[in-house]
Amino acid sequence: MNETTPSETAVREGDPPGNDGTEKAEARRSPRPLTAAAVPRLHRPPPGTPAGIEYHELTRAPGLTPARVVCIDYCQERAEVQEVADIAAFLATHRPTWSRVRWIHVEGLEDHTSIRALAEKYQLHPLAIEDTLDGQQRPKADDYPGSGEIPGRLFVVARRVRGTESGPRAEQVTFFLGRNTLLSFQPTPSPAMDGLRRRIASPRSRLREHDVSFLLYALLDDIVNRFFPLLEEISQRLETVEDEVLVAADRGSLQTVHRIKRDLVLLRRVAWPMRELVTQLQREPHECLSEVAQTYFRDLYDDCVQVIDLIETYREIASAVADTYVSLISNRTNDIMKVLTIIGTIFIPLTFLAGVYGMNMFIPENEWPYSYGVFWVVCIVIAGFMLWRFRRGGWL
Amino acid sequence: MNETTPSETAVREGDPPGNDGTEKAEARRSPRPLTAAAVPRLHRPPPGTPAGIEYHELTRAPGLTPARVVCIDYCQERAEVQEVADIAAFLATHRPTWSRVRWIHVEGLEDHTSIRALAEKYQLHPLAIEDTLDGQQRPKADDYPGSGEIPGRLFVVARRVRGTESGPRAEQVTFFLGRNTLLSFQPTPSPAMDGLRRRIASPRSRLREHDVSFLLYALLDDIVNRFFPLLEEISQRLETVEDEVLVAADRGSLQTVHRIKRDLVLLRRVAWPMRELVTQLQREPHECLSEVAQTYFRDLYDDCVQVIDLIETYREIASAVADTYVSLISNRTNDIMKVLTIIGTIFIPLTFLAGVYGMNMFIPENEWPYSYGVFWVVCIVIAGFMLWRFRRGGWL
Amino acid sequence: MNETTPSETAVREGDPPGNDGTEKAEARRSPRPLTAAAVPRLHRPPPGTPAGIEYHELTRAPGLTPARVVCIDYCQERAEVQEVADIAAFLATHRPTWSRVRWIHVEGLEDHTSIRALAEKYQLHPLAIEDTLDGQQRPKADDYPGSGEIPGRLFVVARRVRGTESGPRAEQVTFFLGRNTLLSFQPTPSPAMDGLRRRIASPRSRLREHDVSFLLYALLDDIVNRFFPLLEEISQRLETVEDEVLVAADRGSLQTVHRIKRDLVLLRRVAWPMRELVTQLQREPHECLSEVAQTYFRDLYDDCVQVIDLIETYREIASAVADTYVSLISNRTNDIMKVLTIIGTIFIPLTFLAGVYGMNMFIPENEWPYSYGVFWVVCIVIAGFMLWRFRRGGWL
Amino acid sequence: MNETTPSETAVREGDPPGNDGTEKAEARRSPRPLTAAAVPRLHRPPPGTPAGIEYHELTRAPGLTPARVVCIDYCQERAEVQEVADIAAFLATHRPTWSRVRWIHVEGLEDHTSIRALAEKYQLHPLAIEDTLDGQQRPKADDYPGSGEIPGRLFVVARRVRGTESGPRAEQVTFFLGRNTLLSFQPTPSPAMDGLRRRIASPRSRLREHDVSFLLYALLDDIVNRFFPLLEEISQRLETVEDEVLVAADRGSLQTVHRIKRDLVLLRRVAWPMRELVTQLQREPHECLSEVAQTYFRDLYDDCVQVIDLIETYREIASAVADTYVSLISNRTNDIMKVLTIIGTIFIPLTFLAGVYGMNMFIPENEWPYSYGVFWVVCIVIAGFMLWRFRRGGWL
Amino acid sequence: MNETTPSETAVREGDPPGNDGTEKAEARRSPRPLTAAAVPRLHRPPPGTPAGIEYHELTRAPGLTPARVVCIDYCQERAEVQEVADIAAFLATHRPTWSRVRWIHVEGLEDHTSIRALAEKYQLHPLAIEDTLDGQQRPKADDYPGSGEIPGRLFVVARRVRGTESGPRAEQVTFFLGRNTLLSFQPTPSPAMDGLRRRIASPRSRLREHDVSFLLYALLDDIVNRFFPLLEEISQRLETVEDEVLVAADRGSLQTVHRIKRDLVLLRRVAWPMRELVTQLQREPHECLSEVAQTYFRDLYDDCVQVIDLIETYREIASAVADTYVSLISNRTNDIMKVLTIIGTIFIPLTFLAGVYGMNMFIPENEWPYSYGVFWVVCIVIAGFMLWRFRRGGWL
Repeated sequence: MNETTPSETAVREGDPPGNDGTEKAEARRSPRPLTAAAVPRLHRPPPGTPAGIEYHELTRAPGLTPARVVCIDYCQERAEVQEVADIAAFLATHRPTWSRVRWIHVEGLEDHTSIRALAEKYQLHPLAIEDTLDGQQRPKADDYPGSGEIPGRLFVVARRVRGTESGPRAEQVTFFLGRNTLLSFQPTPSPAMDGLRRRIASPRSRLREHDVSFLLYALLDDIVNRFFPLLEEISQRLETVEDEVLVAADRGSLQTVHRIKRDLVLLRRVAWPMRELVTQLQREPHECLSEVAQTYFRDLYDDCVQVIDLIETYREIASAVADTYVSLISNRTNDIMKVLTIIGTIFIPLTFLAGVYGMNMFIPENEWPYSYGVFWVVCIVIAGFMLWRFRRGGWL
Repeated sequence: MNETTPSETAVREGDPPGNDGTEKAEARRSPRPLTAAAVPRLHRPPPGTPAGIEYHELTRAPGLTPARVVCIDYCQERAEVQEVADIAAFLATHRPTWSRVRWIHVEGLEDHTSIRALAEKYQLHPLAIEDTLDGQQRPKADDYPGSGEIPGRLFVVARRVRGTESGPRAEQVTFFLGRNTLLSFQPTPSPAMDGLRRRIASPRSRLREHDVSFLLYALLDDIVNRFFPLLEEISQRLETVEDEVLVAADRGSLQTVHRIKRDLVLLRRVAWPMRELVTQLQREPHECLSEVAQTYFRDLYDDCVQVIDLIETYREIASAVADTYVSLISNRTNDIMKVLTIIGTIFIPLTFLAGVYGMNMFIPENEWPYSYGVFWVVCIVIAGFMLWRFRRGGWL
Repeated sequence: MNETTPSETAVREGDPPGNDGTEKAEARRSPRPLTAAAVPRLHRPPPGTPAGIEYHELTRAPGLTPARVVCIDYCQERAEVQEVADIAAFLATHRPTWSRVRWIHVEGLEDHTSIRALAEKYQLHPLAIEDTLDGQQRPKADDYPGSGEIPGRLFVVARRVRGTESGPRAEQVTFFLGRNTLLSFQPTPSPAMDGLRRRIASPRSRLREHDVSFLLYALLDDIVNRFFPLLEEISQRLETVEDEVLVAADRGSLQTVHRIKRDLVLLRRVAWPMRELVTQLQREPHECLSEVAQTYFRDLYDDCVQVIDLIETYREIASAVADTYVSLISNRTNDIMKVLTIIGTIFIPLTFLAGVYGMNMFIPENEWPYSYGVFWVVCIVIAGFMLWRFRRGGWL
Repeated sequence: MNETTPSETAVREGDPPGNDGTEKAEARRSPRPLTAAAVPRLHRPPPGTPAGIEYHELTRAPGLTPARVVCIDYCQERAEVQEVADIAAFLATHRPTWSRVRWIHVEGLEDHTSIRALAEKYQLHPLAIEDTLDGQQRPKADDYPGSGEIPGRLFVVARRVRGTESGPRAEQVTFFLGRNTLLSFQPTPSPAMDGLRRRIASPRSRLREHDVSFLLYALLDDIVNRFFPLLEEISQRLETVEDEVLVAADRGSLQTVHRIKRDLVLLRRVAWPMRELVTQLQREPHECLSEVAQTYFRDLYDDCVQVIDLIETYREIASAVADTYVSLISNRTNDIMKVLTIIGTIFIPLTFLAGVYGMNMFIPENEWPYSYGVFWVVCIVIAGFMLWRFRRGGWL
Repeated sequence: MNETTPSETAVREGDPPGNDGTEKAEARRSPRPLTAAAVPRLHRPPPGTPAGIEYHELTRAPGLTPARVVCIDYCQERAEVQEVADIAAFLATHRPTWSRVRWIHVEGLEDHTSIRALAEKYQLHPLAIEDTLDGQQRPKADDYPGSGEIPGRLFVVARRVRGTESGPRAEQVTFFLGRNTLLSFQPTPSPAMDGLRRRIASPRSRLREHDVSFLLYALLDDIVNRFFPLLEEISQRLETVEDEVLVAADRGSLQTVHRIKRDLVLLRRVAWPMRELVTQLQREPHECLSEVAQTYFRDLYDDCVQVIDLIETYREIASAVADTYVSLISNRTNDIMKVLTIIGTIFIPLTFLAGVYGMNMFIPENEWPYSYGVFWVVCIVIAGFMLWRFRRGGWL
């Protein structure tokens, strides 16, 4: 799978500087520096480019990466899947009369032929087409009300997260919901769609009982549920690093906490507008949304709230871990410095004393026979007194 | 009681690393590290699993842990309790005509037989059944309005907190409120229900005078009141640790404060949605909620506000204690370092002086008869001057 | 006055650990530790206790502390005060026809006899009675709308603050406002009520011109105005401690700032719900509130806003003082350490030099006649150069 | 001008402790401590004082400071200014029929005679009179709707800021807006009013074309514009201190930043309620506010937003400067300590070596002829190696 | 292009203090201090100046900088551009009947002749003229509803950002939108307008199909899109500095981060009110805004949200980088100090020992033949033991 598809929020990874073998000893003291996660960016056409993409502007040839188009028709009794090879021929034929719901799913947005054909057939709005191809939109739901011959459409942008080695990535999935038809577009193939196709194929599936807006619900439900494995994994990393910090607290832990925080920032950027999107779908009545679907969107809303609740809780815990790390490191350094300074402080006066008796002037004590033994006794007494004093003052 | 029932928000405890006897001396300096409290997690079915649980999916056999089902019928004059052994037979008989309120209480959610029987009898919504079995929902109230033959239901999810050795835990309790019937589900037995049963048994109880929504109030009131003993205990720990910090301030205190903060985070995660739940029950009129019950929910709302008020106040105090700890430790270290450095500073010039007179060159002073006495006098004068200077500068 | 009446938010004071005389010298360095202010707590009945207090549950005998009941009837022309000794007899007699406003004031909540008599006479709601006796409610206004024979009541809970040696305390005062009658309950005697009684006695008083809701306004106005002397006192302590910190900055100042912050937290906990209460009284029309009173409540609202504004400003200033303290202490310590380290740094190379010429090997310089003088010159030159360098680098 | 007029928010200045000449040297190291700005305070009558001031309570004699009353009548064609000496006589005469707008301006609130006369003539509300005399109100607009014979009034409290040596001060100005009359009260003379009077005198002035609410707009516009010179001055001080901090960073800079922050806190306390006041005047229709005036209030609202925007931006910058200061100081101290410690560390082993060869035992090296030269070589090699090591580790 | 045009928010750059060659060595240790970015300021007329600019006040002669006026008329079939030299003559002629949209664009606001002519012709409001000339307004949309002969106008203030060497600058652009006419004013020439003119000239352009409010949309779209190149550049600087900090962390990095933060503050000050402006244009119906344009404004709103989202994300990342920098620097200093102190601590006891044997008293060990070798062995054992102890305690 191509990790840098332009339709994903780019999150690259700076390569950590190589440590060659001779540096090992030093590396123990100053560990591998934190690697920088890339800063999220938007790639926009230059200012002055007009907004919206008209049908005639959809000209990129299928040579690049041909899109895969799958059409599913179903009603309670029957379901049929077809892989569409010739989009023009497919759109020219009428849809079967028994079909209650038609779902046309497009994977791959590089080839404009099929998008143009669908856009012309279903009269999609230029702004919606632009958002579909842009791949960097925030999740949202826009209503394009019908007028006269053009039927009303609900245009929904969602983002599906998945974990990669360099952190979470979010891929844009867009939906055009009509009264009986759902168009969905995504840039890369995804196993999620196969799961749904299997569920539709099963005659006992609840999907078969309901209308097209319930299908939209099922697709969004799948997208929201993608958050949970990522959060599960982050919670494990968080637990591990918390244990690490409390036991050993080396600088690698700080790196891990920073990485976790960054991942949570990225997830949060997706989760909040997803929640707004679901709130809107749940609350605002729309001609294309059935009442049953809205009941289910309420359930999805609860999931979104839990996702955000977990993200915020993890952020709080990550901050607490970072604080604990800093305060433990600083406590430890302080303790070490204290002990070392105490050792120094005990010996400095003794060294002075030894220096005195090394002076080349006439010193009566130097003439006494047992002065050397007395000297050691005095030294031990002084050191002992200082140690006792430091301990009593709680300095040790 | 099983501490890790899946229906509780899992809060495990990392085992503190064992300290064997030979480490004692060192342990005094670097105390037992903070133990990590587990990170809260959600255990979710894999993405792609359809939402909602249909009746035919309720198939887990009673072999696991049989559920206990208790049914209470009462009106102002009369009350009857029955332990239901055969759920099918029980549901087949009509309820007594004198019964104004029927409360069916289910303890144990592993055995799906009775849940399925109740779900079919009372036509519970698949999403509500899923939430009931999930055990990890946030407190909320969902309205499933009736239509035609299906009566309207208010579906309420609450969480009952209790203290364990490893911190507070929250157990999910769910309610289905109808016009005359209340169904309640909880995963484990709880003495709270016995107390309510006794209150219903008493003919003078206010419960007997009112309808089924008042019973829901009484159950939620019990759940909200579970916060107070936990908060009482936290306030005592907080007071103890605050005293400790101000007197001794060892690193164990920081551990205790962290633990208290964590506990408060967990309580807060339960308390806020509980407040939202009660607000909704108090404000929004519903066919199943009587006016009297809503007056009482207003009282419950005040309790929720007080719970949150206390939690936030304790969080503030805990942060203040942590800050004080850090600033006291740092002050103390600074003071110690200062004194030690002053001792060093006084002796370093004296040592230099002693070194000078230990040089093997011709030094006139070494020839003088009283030079040794003069040397000591000079040393004492220098040390005294420095001490006086340091004290005058407020350095001591 | 009993400082630990249960109806006050308990704020106890940990005794500072005794310092006996022999510790004086040390105490100068490590001053009296901060004393812990007690953590605010709620004392609640155990979970499972039903909410609300029915009339027949009001059974505590007057033996404990007899309540004092004062009844005042007034209209514009006339005012009469009676101390009620026999509550039953008093309630049995009709109120004089000229009486426009009747105010019954109860001091002391231990004796349930009079409360029960009043509750039965005026049909007070069980939840309101419970809140009255509880003494720990947040300020609020609950409407108990009348129905049929029961007249509507506005139930108001307020908290009156007063300063004690161990910080501010808040005593609960509750009001039942009817159309012509005001009942007020407070746990301890208070001079505030005498002041109002005197104002009612004066024929020119504005109180006499208006209805019973204006009396409620006057009572709440008195309660809100109790904040100002406390804030005045806190502002003086804050000013004193700010001066102290900027001049001397010993650790006692930090203790004082912490105490001020704690006091402000406690005041804030009372002031915010008081503001909400007054907002509600000012905005929401109620059958028992006259339009004139609502105009005056608007004025009271301004006072509440000013109280909160001052509290928040003082909190900001207290935090700024604490920050300044920490940064000054740390700057000072840094300065001291710097000077001491510089002294050490200057002498260490000189000591090395003296050590060299103390070696017992053949050293040509030791044979030179003026080497001692040269040695001192070299030492002074080295020390002078280092001092000059340090000063030029801005290190001194 | 009297700097401590009670009607100004008191902001006094603690005198900096005097530094006499002998302290100069020390003062260079521990500079003049920050001087404490006074804590803002409210001076309130004692609790129990009834709210509102009735006409008969306005009894303070004109002996104190006689008020200056100026009355201006104008319409588009004509304008007349009169200094009112005898307020009773003035109020007894009718206003000229050509007068479209009458503006009565009172300077000085100590003398109650004229205030009482105006209050009786224009039937001002006791609460509004109290707020006028209080001088410490937050900016606000209160509507006193007319009823029967009493015409409606809009009562507006504003605060005019001006810079003094000890920081910004805010003086209360109050307005009573009727349908054709504006009363304005302020405690001290102000040149602002003269400017407006000149503008009214000019026949081409826009003021002359519009009604009385436009006059209120012009007065409030003047008050809001007073913020800009203060903000201009603060921006200059901020720029100066930022340069200072980045170049020299002595402790006086911290003092200046603290002073700027304090000034901004005081301005913010005035600016926020001013914005609320203007929002209310712009949005809510009122019988006394013309549509034209409300259009102009919208412009004033933009100014208020800009004032607050600047205040918040300056606060952010001031905080950033303070942070930079702390981090630069701490970096510098760290650098110094590091260098000093490195010097110490290099000489300590050398001193040990010199000590060894100073021992009085038989040391073979001491017998060698060139041992002294070798000793120096060894010392230089050791010192050089350490320096090279430290530099390579990036420690220098 | 003139960088300090008064109509731009002034952001000047303090010159960094010159470092001459002799300072190089020192400069390595204390790098070039942060240069202060100028504090944003408003230049306002003195208080007392009346608001609004009447037509007769527009008197500045064209001598200063003559304005360039361009008029474009277009409908779907036709488009005509004219450079207006004689504004009076131009306004005197009628507009062609085929013209559906007339756009008059003025570049240069110093010369008041053309502004006055346009203001009189299109009856622009004095307040709007003042805002146009002021150049420092926040983005906003004010509605001046028409009445009688004066047509309604929507007055829009926007700010166009562009990057300069000293940070982002925002230039004010103002629009007067009528039913068929758009007036636009900007202080300096901008290539943006030429791009739009070319798009209008193209017959297939979407602009030609729609009305005048779509033209306003296109102009605002261009202005909003100017944010993206600036954000792109900031994201690159942020990425570079993050890498720098994690690898080398010298003080220049802190300077760069501070600069980035400042730039983001300035962008945020423009972006937030731009978002409010677009929200208002999108939501509130207005006689001059067509439904199509409002659909496109919804798209623009999404862009504004993304701009703000990126700004806030970058601010978070910049803060995180600054925090990491501080904690890395402090960790490194601590590590260095620790190692140095450990070296000192090892040699101090040894120096004492050497001092002892240098004393001139009778010391038995000095008489032993192998005492020198034994001495070295003892020293090495002591040093080795201490090193082993420090390493075992994790101090090294």
